Amino acid sequence: MTTALYAGSFDPVTNGHIDIIKRSAAIFDRLIVVVAINTNKQPLLTPQERVNLLVNAVGEIDNVTFKTATGLTVETFKREGANVLIRGVRNGADLDFETQIAGMNQFLDQKVETVFLPANPQWNFTSSSLIKEVIKMGGSVKGLVPEEVENILQARLRNTRPEK
Amino acid sequence: MTTALYAGSFDPVTNGHIDIIKRSAAIFDRLIVVVAINTNKQPLLTPQERVNLLVNAVGEIDNVTFKTATGLTVETFKREGANVLIRGVRNGADLDFETQIAGMNQFLDQKVETVFLPANPQWNFTSSSLIKEVIKMGGSVKGLVPEEVENILQARLRNTRPEK
Amino acid sequence: MTTALYAGSFDPVTNGHIDIIKRSAAIFDRLIVVVAINTNKQPLLTPQERVNLLVNAVGEIDNVTFKTATGLTVETFKREGANVLIRGVRNGADLDFETQIAGMNQFLDQKVETVFLPANPQWNFTSSSLIKEVIKMGGSVKGLVPEEVENILQARLRNTRPEK
Amino acid sequence: MTTALYAGSFDPVTNGHIDIIKRSAAIFDRLIVVVAINTNKQPLLTPQERVNLLVNAVGEIDNVTFKTATGLTVETFKREGANVLIRGVRNGADLDFETQIAGMNQFLDQKVETVFLPANPQWNFTSSSLIKEVIKMGGSVKGLVPEEVENILQARLRNTRPEK
Amino acid sequence: MTTALYAGSFDPVTNGHIDIIKRSAAIFDRLIVVVAINTNKQPLLTPQERVNLLVNAVGEIDNVTFKTATGLTVETFKREGANVLIRGVRNGADLDFETQIAGMNQFLDQKVETVFLPANPQWNFTSSSLIKEVIKMGGSVKGLVPEEVENILQARLRNTRPEK
Amino acid sequence: MTTALYAGSFDPVTNGHIDIIKRSAAIFDRLIVVVAINTNKQPLLTPQERVNLLVNAVGEIDNVTFKTATGLTVETFKREGANVLIRGVRNGADLDFETQIAGMNQFLDQKVETVFLPANPQWNFTSSSLIKEVIKMGGSVKGLVPEEVENILQARLRNTRPEK
Repeated sequence: MTTALYAGSFDPVTNGHIDIIKRSAAIFDRLIVVVAINTNKQPLLTPQERVNLLVNAVGEIDNVTFKTATGLTVETFKREGANVLIRGVRNGADLDFETQIAGMNQFLDQKVETVFLPANPQWNFTSSSLIKEVIKMGGSVKGLVPEEVENILQARLRNTRPEK
Repeated sequence: MTTALYAGSFDPVTNGHIDIIKRSAAIFDRLIVVVAINTNKQPLLTPQERVNLLVNAVGEIDNVTFKTATGLTVETFKREGANVLIRGVRNGADLDFETQIAGMNQFLDQKVETVFLPANPQWNFTSSSLIKEVIKMGGSVKGLVPEEVENILQARLRNTRPEK
Repeated sequence: MTTALYAGSFDPVTNGHIDIIKRSAAIFDRLIVVVAINTNKQPLLTPQERVNLLVNAVGEIDNVTFKTATGLTVETFKREGANVLIRGVRNGADLDFETQIAGMNQFLDQKVETVFLPANPQWNFTSSSLIKEVIKMGGSVKGLVPEEVENILQARLRNTRPEK
Repeated sequence: MTTALYAGSFDPVTNGHIDIIKRSAAIFDRLIVVVAINTNKQPLLTPQERVNLLVNAVGEIDNVTFKTATGLTVETFKREGANVLIRGVRNGADLDFETQIAGMNQFLDQKVETVFLPANPQWNFTSSSLIKEVIKMGGSVKGLVPEEVENILQARLRNTRPEK
Repeated sequence: MTTALYAGSFDPVTNGHIDIIKRSAAIFDRLIVVVAINTNKQPLLTPQERVNLLVNAVGEIDNVTFKTATGLTVETFKREGANVLIRGVRNGADLDFETQIAGMNQFLDQKVETVFLPANPQWNFTSSSLIKEVIKMGGSVKGLVPEEVENILQARLRNTRPEK
Repeated sequence: MTTALYAGSFDPVTNGHIDIIKRSAAIFDRLIVVVAINTNKQPLLTPQERVNLLVNAVGEIDNVTFKTATGLTVETFKREGANVLIRGVRNGADLDFETQIAGMNQFLDQKVETVFLPANPQWNFTSSSLIKEVIKMGGSVKGLVPEEVENILQARLRNTRPEK
């Protein structure tokens, strides 16, 4: 039985993440989705909010569970008994970066295997940070995130926009 | 008639930007150069200063106009009746990033077509941020920016340098 | 008035090419699609066949004309009074290659400006050579090329397959 | 239960391939290694020789089986009841190419999921074609391929070298 | 006689840097390793600490000397009578960035030649910032940096970690 | 004393090669330029012709010598007592390829260090194969190769062009 782990900030979850989760859940026996709490970053949403949005989006998939975790991904990986780490890659620049992270993770724990899933071309331009940027500038990302995410982002980020 | 839009921070305009503007103005019937006001960034120059430097550099070209704009580029694009968005690309890393932005812009408004102009090899290493970095560290970028820009940067950034 | 030129082997035209042609025709006043006859290559289809397939696919667009040409693209460009050369780019590897070709073309004739259109993500994996490879191996590319192209490829390439 | 399929020419198998096979076999419940017979290429080794070299190298792993196949990989994938296709990637140029192939495979059969494993840095420069090139020019690749492979390549390719 | 200059933040030195230093010292007659003091960044270690760690790691190599410097690298280059600037590159994204820096340096002083050394695959995932990130999150990088560096990082960064 | 070796097909030498030779000769004590005789390729020019064109172009530089060699570059490297192998790189795709070759060369002989020189942006689009392609199609590459090379290419390749 293969347990896959997909860790990220998910601040917020996008349809690109959801696509990776669905495809990973179809390939692997079990999938653990981990909201990584990085105390050096200032996220928009609390860890619990991020988990809730994930659960509302893909919680109905049988073999997927959701957690939060602090510290190194390799520690979570070991604690959860995972066999493989999932990362989405969109292009060569992504690959160059992700290869470095995968190398470090394997150095930290030789058992940590990373596999890359090619991003669905449909969501190739989707990232949490770009989506927040669009909302801040007054746009809508309906269709790129679940409706609930769009609503929360609009509510949170509207206040950060200056008067025109 | 084709109206092209070239938006950026232009903080400050470089000879690389000027090259893209001249070449775009030669290809397209009309070119609108837009100084994007991003309220989340802290620019060195005010929007009006940035427009003035652009006008002094390439204002004599008949079919080019200059504006400032806040908000999403796609909103400016629609408001100005543009047909095509111009972006310069220098290398594969640029392309990977710009493809993402172009994808988002087309998602936000299906009519927004982006075309990439290859950077002139002569200005391939030129970027506003690297130029400011050089000036801050005591260098001169004469030949990479209009003389007026060099003078302003020297005046503004000299003060940010600590005593040796 | 801007005349764009889009040259290629089109052996055969794919939906990826058709997408670039439609988008270019919408941006530029006139578009000339040129089937390049490269006497050093052994194409599957004759130049006239390739033109016919293009005409059947996108011939109804008002501002597009179709030609065949031998020799350097820059010569065709000059002869046709074109202002801009169109190339589709899919990724960083494409860009690195295309930048080299664009640099050579501008060296050969300083007036030759190249603009890159980002490939539609939907057709990002589509190329004439990969499509022929798929057909040779017994697959169908319905949905990646016009139906007429699929039929011709099946007829031509079926014979090249060995008995199982 | 997840069945992974790893298809390639394996002409010949290298330590890079062996590394991918071992890691894939550790991640997935079952791994099918397929020697692809491409009738358009002229391989050095017969399909049976290639399978034999694979079996001698990694045949002792319990959950790995070996096959030859003609035709499209997606057909083999379906026939074997595979859930996921394995590809090794070494760098951005690899990724750009492999993303295209993965996109085509998913187009041909929506169920074909591709996952990329990052090449082990130790074998990052290893490819079947470069290895054959080295042997042809008089070198030894001991340490990059199983000893048996080195011996066969030396015997086969020595004759292709001209007298000095 | 060729004098090479290898400048960087070395905040802290990693085994990747040490590898580049050893290989450069073997190629060039003299090597000057320069700890660049960038007053716009907030380093973890003082310039003197960074020099000390370098000296302790590779100070025994005869033809290597160590310095600190403020200001532009090209000024240090000229002052030290260097002939060539050394940079390590790991992948295409690195190359795209480093080519830009090399172009700027040659613009600032035509005599500044940059040569790139390919990173040793063994240290391909090693960077000062990633190493600090790992330590902050509670990991150990023993084997990626000299033992002394590990100890200092643990002492300095442990305090930045919040209570679990 | 550092001896650098720059090996290639030089079929024919271009101004891009000449630029790398001049810059390498300025950095290293001695430079050996090696015309590699690859018996698996069909060159346009004989090895002696290629050496002659190199000598006529850069033979006046004191510390440069010219040779032909068959077999592996690492064998030539050892035989000539070289310390470093020179390669020009233009972009990320080049780097990904060259890193692989450098890795193989170091595997074959641990003493073989490769350094990459960034291509001069002015010659960034110049390659022997593209230059021959242009000539075959009726163009002139005056300015990209020495005049003598242009003349020889025109004489040799004119005959390969079909009647218009």
